[in-house]
Order: sequence, then C-alpha cells, then structure tokens
Amino acid sequence: MKLRELADRLRCRLEGDGDVEIRRVAGIESAEPGDLTFVANPRYNAFLTETRASAVILSAAYTGGSPASAAVLRSDDPYLSFAQAVALLTEAIVPPKGIDPMSAVARDVALGRDVSIGPFVAIGPGASVGARTTIYPNVVVGAGARIGDDCVVHSHVSIRDRVQIGHRVVVQDGAVIGSDGFGFVKRGDGTHLKIPQHADVIIEDDVEIGANTTIDRPAVGETRIRAGAKIDNLVQIAHGVKVGARSLLAAQVGIAGSTTIDDDVVLAGQVGVTGHITIGKGAVATAQSGIPNSVEPGELVSGYPAIANRDWLKSSAIFRQLPALKHRVAELERRIAELEEKLAVWRIPLDR
Amino acid sequence: MKLRELADRLRCRLEGDGDVEIRRVAGIESAEPGDLTFVANPRYNAFLTETRASAVILSAAYTGGSPASAAVLRSDDPYLSFAQAVALLTEAIVPPKGIDPMSAVARDVALGRDVSIGPFVAIGPGASVGARTTIYPNVVVGAGARIGDDCVVHSHVSIRDRVQIGHRVVVQDGAVIGSDGFGFVKRGDGTHLKIPQHADVIIEDDVEIGANTTIDRPAVGETRIRAGAKIDNLVQIAHGVKVGARSLLAAQVGIAGSTTIDDDVVLAGQVGVTGHITIGKGAVATAQSGIPNSVEPGELVSGYPAIANRDWLKSSAIFRQLPALKHRVAELERRIAELEEKLAVWRIPLDR
Amino acid sequence: MKLRELADRLRCRLEGDGDVEIRRVAGIESAEPGDLTFVANPRYNAFLTETRASAVILSAAYTGGSPASAAVLRSDDPYLSFAQAVALLTEAIVPPKGIDPMSAVARDVALGRDVSIGPFVAIGPGASVGARTTIYPNVVVGAGARIGDDCVVHSHVSIRDRVQIGHRVVVQDGAVIGSDGFGFVKRGDGTHLKIPQHADVIIEDDVEIGANTTIDRPAVGETRIRAGAKIDNLVQIAHGVKVGARSLLAAQVGIAGSTTIDDDVVLAGQVGVTGHITIGKGAVATAQSGIPNSVEPGELVSGYPAIANRDWLKSSAIFRQLPALKHRVAELERRIAELEEKLAVWRIPLDR
Repeated sequence: MKLRELADRLRCRLEGDGDVEIRRVAGIESAEPGDLTFVANPRYNAFLTETRASAVILSAAYTGGSPASAAVLRSDDPYLSFAQAVALLTEAIVPPKGIDPMSAVARDVALGRDVSIGPFVAIGPGASVGARTTIYPNVVVGAGARIGDDCVVHSHVSIRDRVQIGHRVVVQDGAVIGSDGFGFVKRGDGTHLKIPQHADVIIEDDVEIGANTTIDRPAVGETRIRAGAKIDNLVQIAHGVKVGARSLLAAQVGIAGSTTIDDDVVLAGQVGVTGHITIGKGAVATAQSGIPNSVEPGELVSGYPAIANRDWLKSSAIFRQLPALKHRVAELERRIAELEEKLAVWRIPLDR
Repeated sequence: MKLRELADRLRCRLEGDGDVEIRRVAGIESAEPGDLTFVANPRYNAFLTETRASAVILSAAYTGGSPASAAVLRSDDPYLSFAQAVALLTEAIVPPKGIDPMSAVARDVALGRDVSIGPFVAIGPGASVGARTTIYPNVVVGAGARIGDDCVVHSHVSIRDRVQIGHRVVVQDGAVIGSDGFGFVKRGDGTHLKIPQHADVIIEDDVEIGANTTIDRPAVGETRIRAGAKIDNLVQIAHGVKVGARSLLAAQVGIAGSTTIDDDVVLAGQVGVTGHITIGKGAVATAQSGIPNSVEPGELVSGYPAIANRDWLKSSAIFRQLPALKHRVAELERRIAELEEKLAVWRIPLDR
Repeated sequence: MKLRELADRLRCRLEGDGDVEIRRVAGIESAEPGDLTFVANPRYNAFLTETRASAVILSAAYTGGSPASAAVLRSDDPYLSFAQAVALLTEAIVPPKGIDPMSAVARDVALGRDVSIGPFVAIGPGASVGARTTIYPNVVVGAGARIGDDCVVHSHVSIRDRVQIGHRVVVQDGAVIGSDGFGFVKRGDGTHLKIPQHADVIIEDDVEIGANTTIDRPAVGETRIRAGAKIDNLVQIAHGVKVGARSLLAAQVGIAGSTTIDDDVVLAGQVGVTGHITIGKGAVATAQSGIPNSVEPGELVSGYPAIANRDWLKSSAIFRQLPALKHRVAELERRIAELEEKLAVWRIPLDR
C-alpha cells in the first residue's frame, strides 16, 4: 500500500514522500526499508533518528528530533494509529467455513450462518453457535451451551454445559470456561464433601479470554465476565466472581471466590485477590500485589498485603535500607548509654 | 420439593410453613421466592432480614434477627446442609453410557461396566478404565494408565503413560497428569542434558484435580497425591512431590520437586513451596506465601519468605509505618545530638 | 544389566561386586536390592549408610562414610552419571510410526521420514513436520507452522499458524505456542481495540516447553525462545519476549511483553518480570521475585521488588525483627525524654 493511501485511511497527516510502498508494520529497532514503524512510548524516542523504516507514526505533539530518512505520519493517538495500521497490513489465516466431517456436533445444535467448525470438535445436545463464529479444531462445547455471533474459539478450549457466551468473544487456546468451583465442606472426620457446582457462567459481549485461563462455575448464583473485559493467559477466575466491564486482567492473576471486580479495573500480572471482597471501579493493582481487603474506586494499590501505592513505594524504599536503619538504632543506643553513664557518674542530685 | 420433605432429608428442624415448594438453592442476596438460601458466614447475617428467599438454613445456635418472611431450617452445620441441599436440588447433565464410535480405544484396554467414553478420546494399549467412569470428549489416556471406578475425567485432560488413578477421582478440564518433571543436568559447556522422566504418578481415591493443573512424573521414585486431597486450578505439582491425605491446595499454588506436603495441610492461593522440604501435618499457609524451609505440623505461616503468621502480621503492620519509624529515628538522632552538644559545652570533668 | 557393564558405560570406577544385576535407578530412601542409587546433594549423605540399594553412585571426591552393603560407582559428576544411568535403565513407551487414520492432516503438509502422528491430530495446510518427530493424540498444528526433526509434541498442544519450531524440541501436554499477545489500545470511550497479533514465534533447537505453558505471538517483530532454553510448566511468555539460550525458567514464571531474557539466565518458580526490560546474561532470580527493572549480567536478585540477593537477605531478616526494632526505638524515645527532662530540671546555664 502506498504511504499516501495509508495516511488517508489512518487519518494521519503525511510529512514526506507519499509514494513509498509500505508492506508491513515493524518495531522501531528492527524495521527495514518498506516498513512502517511508530513511537508511542517515549523510551523508544532514542531510536528515532537511526531507524531504517520508510515511515514513522509520531504524535502530533512531538517536537523532538526527526527521523533521518523516514516519512512521518502525524497522529493524535500514535498507538491507536499503529493498531489500525497493523489491521490494514496484516492478514489472518482464516479456517474455511462449514462443518468438518470429523466433528461430533449433536443433531439438535442450532448453528448460525457461515459458521466454521473444525475437525475433532464436539458440541453437545441443545447447544447453539452464532453466525460467523469460528470454532477451531479439538474444541469441546458442552450440552446446552450458547455461543453468540462472530466469536473465535481457538483449539482445545473447553466450554462446559450451559455456559453462555455473547457476541464477538475471543477465547484463546486451552481456556476452560465453566469448570467446577473449588467448593467443599469439611466433615467431622476431616474429609471433604464436594458441593455440586452446576450454576451459571456468563461471558458478555466483546470479552477476550487468554490461553489456558480457567473460569469456574459456582454452586449457586453465577460467575459473570462483563462486556469488554479482557483477560490474559493463565488467569484463575473462581466460582461466583464478577469481572467488571472493560476491566483488564493480566497474565497469571488469580481471583478467589465470590469477589467482585468492578468496571474499568486493571490488575497487573500475578496479582492475587482474596474472596468475598470488592475492587472498586477504576482501581489499579500493580504486578504481584496480594489484595486481602476491598479496594476503593480509583485507588492504586501495591504490595503484599496490598496498600496504597505511594505508601508502598516509600516503605519498600526503606525496606532496602533496613540494615542501615537498624545500625542507626544501635548507634543511638550506644550514644544514649554513654550519656546516661556520664550523667550517672556526676551523681547530680535531682532535688538541687 | 416441599420444604417439609427437604427438612427431613437434610435432617434439619423446620420453623415455618412446610408446604412451600422449593425449586433451587440461591445466594442470600439474589434469592427469589421459591429459593432456599443459607447463612454460614456471619458477614452475610445483615442480608437475613431482607432476603426474598422462601426458606433459610440457619445455625441451630443462631439467635440474631430472623428473616421477615422466610421459613427457617435449623442445622448443626449450615454449610454442610447447604451442600446437601444443592445436591438434592440441582441436576448434572450426564453424558450417555457407552463408547463413542469416534474414539480411539486400543483393542486391549480393560473397560469396566457402564463406562462413558466420549468422542475424540484416545486410550493407549494396556490401559484400563473402571466401572461407571465417565471420560469426556478429547481426553487422552496413555499406554498402561489405570483409572479406577466412578471417576469423572473432563475434556482435554492428559493422563500420560502408566499413571495410576484410584476410585471416585474427579479431574477438571485440561489438567495434565504425568508430564515430564523439569529435570536436567548442566554439562560442562553450559547446555543441559534431559534426565528421562519415566517413573510413577499415583493419584489415590477421592482426589479432585483442578482445571489446567499440572502434575509431573519423576525420574525415579514417585509423585503421589494421597486419598481425599483436593487440588484447585492451575496448580503446579513438580516431580517427586507427595501431597498428603485431605490436603487442600488452592489455585495457582506451586510445589517444587521432592517436597512432601503432609496430611490435612491447607495452602491458600498462589503459595509457592521450595523443593526438598516437608510441610507438617495440618499446617496452613496464607495466600501468596513463599515457603523456603520446612514447616512444623499445625503451624500457620505467611509472608515471603514465610514466617509464623502472628509475627508476619506484626511485621507487616510495621512495614506500612516504616516512613514514620524512619522519621522517629531521625528525630532521635537530632535530639541526642543536641544533648551531646549541651553536655560537651558544659565541659563537666569526669573525675569530679 | 550387570553393574560392571553399567560402570563401563557410565565411565565410573567400580568399587565392589561387579556381577550384581541392576534393574532400575531409585532414590536413596526407597531403593531396594537390585537398584542403583546416587548421592549428588549432600543433604542425602545421611541415608548412605542405611540404603538397601545394591550400588551407589558417589563423587570421586567423597571421603565420608561408605554404604554398608552396596557397591560404589565413583564419578566425577554423580548427577550426570545418575541421569545417564536413568537413560540406560528406563524405557519410554513410544507410539507407533505412521499417520493415524483418525487424524486430519491437510493434503499439502510436508512430512519427514518416520513421523508418528496420533489420532485426532489436526495439521493445517502448508505446515511441515520433520523426520522422526512424534505428534501425540489431539495436538493441533496451524496452517503454515513448521516443526523440525526429532521433536516430541505431547497431547493437547496448540501450535498456531506459522509458528516455527526447530529440531529436538520437546513440548509437554497442553502448551500453547503462538496465541494472541495481550495487546489492546484504549479508545476514548474506555473500550479497548484489539491490535491484531499475527507476527512470528520462533522456537529454536533443543528447547523444552512445559505442560500448559503459554507463549504469545506479537503484533510486530517476533517472540523467540533461543536454543537450549528449558521452560517448565504453567509459564507465561508474553508477546515479543526473547528468552536466551540455555536459560532455565521454572514453573509459573511470568514474563511481560517485549522483555529480553539474555543467555544462561535462571528464573526460579513464580518469578514475575515486567515488560520492556532486559535480564542480563547469567543473572539468577530466586523464587517469587518480582523484577521491575533491568538486571545486570551475573546478578543474583530476590524480593518484591527484586534487589540484590545479599541485601534482600539482610532486609528480610530485619523485617522479621521489626516489632523488636520498633520497641527499641520506643525505648530510646523514653530514655532520651528522661535525659532531656533531667537536664531541663537542672536548668544548667548554657553560658557558664
């Protein structure tokens, strides 16, 4: 695609030669002639003058050094323009429409138009799959499960009985939706009685679920992932959890049972959240935080146990200096003992 | 089911109208007329007066405010009665008995009575599957593996060669049992030689294994999960680990190689345990603990590195106050310097 | 195998009866007559005098107590000799060569000599599988993916479109290679636009990838695992990450996007590494470390946030003593107040 056409379609202002042919998007360090690259994160500014790319997407507000030989696309949101450019210049390999003869689709399954169902896919009785949805090979969909339109379900995903999935949902490989919650009652002899876990799991529209992530169903009530939430790989969502709209859960996050994550929450990698609490709207937890109590809307928390980020930063800085602090206390003890001794030696009468 | 019949079958004392028809169990906040609910956790007491449920399971000892309009089932163990009520009032969707023609079961596999084997299940030569065991679609069972009676193996589970599984074991979707332990020897040139991992994995009776959990086999000896242990999702059990009877391992726990978890241990979410140590009988570790040394029986530990919980709570509380503590030390230094200066100015002879 | 022959093949010096028949390798605590065992970790020295094994591999340098009744194989590297002995004395169950008729291999897939492709394996158009490679049941290989010679791909592995895998690579069950990176752009209305993730994933020769591990593909550039790296179970490798040659990543490690792990790095269990940083050659992070900044080559780090291990050990020791330290500060405050009061009572003129 000519750079001029790309600029038009991205609604970017073009500075430089619009006739150059762009064939792909690349990172600024590895870009070659023929590539479009971008700077959205200032830490990559330094690479700008050296890049071999033919064109660079830059912030409209950026006034630093220009690339030596690359044309520039000015954008109000360079990262968004980059995302759109990737969509324009790359092409997914799409499986063929239709139902593979080596699948096992129950007779009464309701299939929308233009579905694609790969080999070794099993779909149980009473299930439904919406229009234009793609089911990759070796997926299992349980009895009575419902999948909406325009979904993409990658290989080895388990969607258990009666799970409900909305439209435009993407599920990466190996994710499990609707496995039994970890619910047991301790009996008098120390053994555990399993509480049957047959209640609902609802995945709303525009959700993405990462590879090998697990989402449990509860005994009563429901587990619900609200519209537009994005969940990364290897995340654990326990029974009865609610994840709010547009929330982002990074890889290896774990949420214990019956907790509510409100809308627009961001949990960074490996964060753990205990059960039966609420993370307020727009709250953010930095990586590896362990959250034992509810978090107020908009709060930024860190640490184990998690506290306000600004406090954690201060305490963590002092943690590193603890040997010095301990030394200072010992030094104070020495000096005060010396003073006490001095004054004792003087035997100055208190009554004078 | 009439509430009166339910009370009989749960062995609960009925207070109120026994003729009301109960159709399901629900959480106290979302319960509707026709629902049975329960209070086992005091934090939900507040919802009791407002619940719309038709009946509530309450502790025999509970003397607080009564529900406005609901009947009451008095129980010595409300959580146990709740679990039993769920079992009475919900119904699993059960796959049909028999062997799906689209499975690949080796000719010499020993199959018990009334097994259910779904489509795209592969079972290798010399394996056996016990009576009434259900194998969901797309499970793979390796050569020589043995699965007992009344087990449920959900989709996409891998049971590798020669793994032994007892009776009444439940394996959630995507779990891997018998993968190669992470065992390598470093060679002189910095590369690593793989130690073949072909020894035993034994899963005893009444164990539950969570979705996408991984249980490795060792090079020598065995990995063993003892009777009645319950393991949640995304847990890592390394080669040669022993997990004790009735132990509970919450989601995302990781146990390194050759460690022994004794009976009745509880490890909360995301706990990590190093290799070659022992966690004593009945010990408990709170969420995200990192355990570098053996733990005595009955101990409650927390932290990273894990220490006695009571000490960790105190130290964590002070961690939050470290900026204040550091300030107090600085203040002491200022005051003692002032005193020292005062006394120096006085030039009081030490020999007087 | 006679012990004498084993000694020859392991290039160990034999001390004792070479005619004893050895049938397997066992751990020192559980070894029986007929077993070969080993001591490579000094913590197991204590078991040496009591072992029932017929032979023990010992360091050539070891001069402690000898086993009562076992022969000895002296080795310069007992752990290496143990690994080689395991390889000599155990036998893997190997699936048959050929292509199972219940697989779905696209017509144009290039297959090397002596491949083994199990039932319910789907291989997309344009893919290739090298000579002597084994693909276990229910594996999915996407369109255009390339797998080298002598690889072993266990059940339920997903290898997505165009992923490139070298020679002698082992992939444990359920691993996902080439899933979409977690890349979204936030729009003005708070929703997130997915950045298409279609770029390359390259797994070089001699890599091992653990069970249920996930390796994402990026939008641009590549995710690359260099030759000889070994990755354990349930590890998350985000989009654009590079893992260095011969690096070892233990279970449940998570690496965020665009980070570079240099060669010969060791990350212990549950370590988290943030995005866009570099872990230098030969660096080591102990278990559960949370690494927020680049690490210099050869450094040993620990903690959350991770700092130099020696500093972390000191600070962690003091963390446990924080209640005592706080008490000492309070005590100092009391004593200094007493001194201040004394001196104030004396009203000693500063001008004297």
